[in-house]
Amino acid sequence: MPDGPSSPLTGIAASPGLGVGPAFVLLPPDLTFETRSGQDAAAERARLEAALAASRADIERIRERARASLGDEHAAIFDAHLLLLSDPELDAAITAGLNGGLNAEAALVGASDTFITMFESLDDPYLRERAADLRDVRNRVLAHLLGKPLTALADLREPAVIVAHDLAPSDTAQLDRSLVRGVVTAVGGRTSHSAIMARGLGLPAVVGVGEALHGISPGTVLLVDGDAGRVSVNPEAGEVAAAQVQMQRTAEERARLTALAGREGRTADGLRVELAANIGSPADLPLALEAGAEGVGLYRTEFLYLGRDTLPDEEEQYRAYRAVLEGMAGRPVVIRTLDVGGDKALPALNLPPEENPFLGFRAIRLCLARPDLFRVQLRALLRASVHGDLRVMFPMIATVQEFRAARALLDEERARLTAEGVPVAEHIQVGMMVEIPAAAVLSRQFAREADFFSIGSNDLIGYALAADRLNEQVANLYQPLNPAILALIGQTCAGAATQNRWVGVCGEMAGDPLALPLLVGLGVTELSMSAPALLPRREQVLKLDAGKARELAAHALTLDTAQEVEAAVRSAFPELAQREPGA
Amino acid sequence: MPDGPSSPLTGIAASPGLGVGPAFVLLPPDLTFETRSGQDAAAERARLEAALAASRADIERIRERARASLGDEHAAIFDAHLLLLSDPELDAAITAGLNGGLNAEAALVGASDTFITMFESLDDPYLRERAADLRDVRNRVLAHLLGKPLTALADLREPAVIVAHDLAPSDTAQLDRSLVRGVVTAVGGRTSHSAIMARGLGLPAVVGVGEALHGISPGTVLLVDGDAGRVSVNPEAGEVAAAQVQMQRTAEERARLTALAGREGRTADGLRVELAANIGSPADLPLALEAGAEGVGLYRTEFLYLGRDTLPDEEEQYRAYRAVLEGMAGRPVVIRTLDVGGDKALPALNLPPEENPFLGFRAIRLCLARPDLFRVQLRALLRASVHGDLRVMFPMIATVQEFRAARALLDEERARLTAEGVPVAEHIQVGMMVEIPAAAVLSRQFAREADFFSIGSNDLIGYALAADRLNEQVANLYQPLNPAILALIGQTCAGAATQNRWVGVCGEMAGDPLALPLLVGLGVTELSMSAPALLPRREQVLKLDAGKARELAAHALTLDTAQEVEAAVRSAFPELAQREPGA
Repeated sequence: MPDGPSSPLTGIAASPGLGVGPAFVLLPPDLTFETRSGQDAAAERARLEAALAASRADIERIRERARASLGDEHAAIFDAHLLLLSDPELDAAITAGLNGGLNAEAALVGASDTFITMFESLDDPYLRERAADLRDVRNRVLAHLLGKPLTALADLREPAVIVAHDLAPSDTAQLDRSLVRGVVTAVGGRTSHSAIMARGLGLPAVVGVGEALHGISPGTVLLVDGDAGRVSVNPEAGEVAAAQVQMQRTAEERARLTALAGREGRTADGLRVELAANIGSPADLPLALEAGAEGVGLYRTEFLYLGRDTLPDEEEQYRAYRAVLEGMAGRPVVIRTLDVGGDKALPALNLPPEENPFLGFRAIRLCLARPDLFRVQLRALLRASVHGDLRVMFPMIATVQEFRAARALLDEERARLTAEGVPVAEHIQVGMMVEIPAAAVLSRQFAREADFFSIGSNDLIGYALAADRLNEQVANLYQPLNPAILALIGQTCAGAATQNRWVGVCGEMAGDPLALPLLVGLGVTELSMSAPALLPRREQVLKLDAGKARELAAHALTLDTAQEVEAAVRSAFPELAQREPGA
Repeated sequence: MPDGPSSPLTGIAASPGLGVGPAFVLLPPDLTFETRSGQDAAAERARLEAALAASRADIERIRERARASLGDEHAAIFDAHLLLLSDPELDAAITAGLNGGLNAEAALVGASDTFITMFESLDDPYLRERAADLRDVRNRVLAHLLGKPLTALADLREPAVIVAHDLAPSDTAQLDRSLVRGVVTAVGGRTSHSAIMARGLGLPAVVGVGEALHGISPGTVLLVDGDAGRVSVNPEAGEVAAAQVQMQRTAEERARLTALAGREGRTADGLRVELAANIGSPADLPLALEAGAEGVGLYRTEFLYLGRDTLPDEEEQYRAYRAVLEGMAGRPVVIRTLDVGGDKALPALNLPPEENPFLGFRAIRLCLARPDLFRVQLRALLRASVHGDLRVMFPMIATVQEFRAARALLDEERARLTAEGVPVAEHIQVGMMVEIPAAAVLSRQFAREADFFSIGSNDLIGYALAADRLNEQVANLYQPLNPAILALIGQTCAGAATQNRWVGVCGEMAGDPLALPLLVGLGVTELSMSAPALLPRREQVLKLDAGKARELAAHALTLDTAQEVEAAVRSAFPELAQREPGA
């Protein structure tokens, strides 16, 4: 009974939604080869160059396709791929292999894998992504060397569910979103490239299904349930019909939410609550704008610094900051200065390991100790300030002196630029992250110094409850709704109010539907979150009664536990779903 | 000019005070030996047994002398030495060497050094002390094997300054405190055994002087300055006279303070402030009582658990707790339940290393996850409760649920003991450490659950400012007088007051003269500190105007920085010295 329903496959729910379609099976090409020594270096070099040229042509073609179908931000990754093709360090390593008499395949793989292993060993999500890029480029060049055409998603012409061992960045860039009904992969987790891309594109995805996936023949009908992490193989007609009803409902819901994108964030009773986006690079802007971001509440500049051996110079930083300011067209953009050190390693600085990196030498502590490095970023920010509404934010501020010292450096660089005749915006708000408990407790004092506060809820919760949320044994103590956390947020808002400063939240709490009424009730007037959460949170804000939220928040502060707070929120707002898909 | 003054020696100021006297040079015996193989195991075994028996006789003699001159608590260490002499694991390792044909010296040293290296490699102060004990015992047995008498401090008959490479525990136990004018050692730091013993005995000490010390001949007059870390060799008469004036002044000061030992802690305007001691074992009691401790504010029970492969059973714990309760004769004794995990490793539990141990699985988190282990301690505490005024304190409480869960286990064990017919005190105060910011912020809620709060200022400061004080690069952010820390302490006291709970401080802030008026002004009514700080703090409390302290504290809460707070304290209490010797 080859066409009847078989047991469903289960995996990790990586991107929500339902999708039905025939399987488009992307088989991994057989790229095995023999390692040979004693080869003619010049001949092998020539073979390699031909494969590199063919790969370059491929990538340029894919880039144009990605630009057309997905936009500039997704095409940018192929610039990185092209750079890898001509990377001098990689080339030097390959050349050493060729000069040693290896065949081009062995020289290429040996050299690439050294870098891949190095990137992967550093336990940094950004570098792991670079390792994936390099593996992708290596496989393309190797396929050309072996004379085997790569199976390409570009060949997709009909609606289908993509079935793959894993998706490489270049695969997903070739995806025609309008034809893809879902994605199923054998490997990967919620933070794998496949999962992130699928969420970004709004495609249902189940990843980590395992070897069972390799038994799926091309054309087999699959029903992907990205919420349940389940894939039905040859589903029965009734199951498909039910899914289609649900898909229709979801599409309508999405259309309804999208219609809200242009609405200003304001509660039903008229309180202005700005809904902004967290971004890591200019490439994240289009998705944020599509979701109606009223500003950027957190631009994490460390992505400019991570995963490279040298520091970005002033010009490179200026260009990135300017791109975001221009992209936001006058809407506010909060750029956080460098937040690295401790767990986020910066190879160029060669910092020693620490016993407790979360309580260590990082972010503003590092920047104040290394003003040479910090001034470069401050100058780039000041130069970019004329291109929009720039707001500079210092991370990890614990003491008033630190804020003053950081601001003094900014003022010095402003004076220098002005003396050099470089234009700088007249008014730039200079604020700080409130993520260290002392900053929340002392918000009255800090409000005399800083123009705004943005609460970094992730770290604030970790420090205030002394629990590293990445440590599974204490993860249960990481409680966003703990009344102590709400009290610290309330203190921050009360302190800010004495000087009419605004308070935002840019941690994960900002996108949490259960936390939203509490935050607004405590006095937070800006919520900055990842783009996918913006539309549902906008709808929630538009319907919210701020007066009721204030009553709820005041009540929550008298409760004993996070569980009691959660129950109080659900009782006040029974319409809040148990768990929101895709939030 | 052999008797004229020569350049002073400099080292580490290890114990304050001045002392003058002729050098009593304790030369390290030459314990070099030849390693021989192919020996008769039985003959070597007999030699070893003779040396062990002679060593046992030595140690018993020294123990009696220590008991007579220093008291029981200092004699206890020799029980540990006697145990090492008959340790089965050590014996097994030595026997293996003997059976392999080694001579007794080589078998002894080989086996001992394996354990010494292991203890030292674990980077635990307690285990390093055990390593020192084992080295001391090993040298004694080795000296007997080699037929060389150990130079003994017991031979001291005249007042003198002890000059040694280093002092072993058995050396210091032989010290006749009345004859020793000072201690100078070539090696060691502020936390070496020599330094700790000298401070405990109130002897001026300079350690880590280096090789220069080996040039000192017996009888050379030395002037030890334990505050400056300086030793004058053959000092001039004028220098000696000036030192004697100073010593007289210090002696009078000490006598004056000692006269206060019996006075109840109460401010000049009548506010009761209890002055209690922090202890690590029953052996610390005599010094605490001598300094007039009105209670034990913190008994760190982890010393019962650390540095061993097995966990202490109920009976062993019961005996220790009972000894402290009886020693305090009805005065309050706050016993903190097990505070290990993370950085304080417990070999018997075999916990995995953590990325951020200070934010990890430790103390009450560990105890609640391992109730089997926790219940043993709770039963021992409950059984001991009938021998005095026991107060049980839970460490690292972050959430109300944790406190409730810990208290529930205590209540369960109480019910079981009662059912078994074992007597338990009717009323036992059950309190908690306030060392996690969330506990301070939520003190109103916690005050409904806990009978008292004791602020662990060291950790509270570290978490509230997100600074690991053991990390030199951020040690400047570890600021006890930061207004945010004072605000958290003030919040703790305000919350406690709503339910009439008392608040103590058992971190280092309790012994800090600059912090004292602030703590009292914020509402703290119990200060628990190491014994040497008790008398000077008692004098400070007796003279303090609590009303003025309250005004100062209220003012401090409005300031911006720790520096401003310090200036405000000094301005309100100009009599506070810049730095108090020996505090």
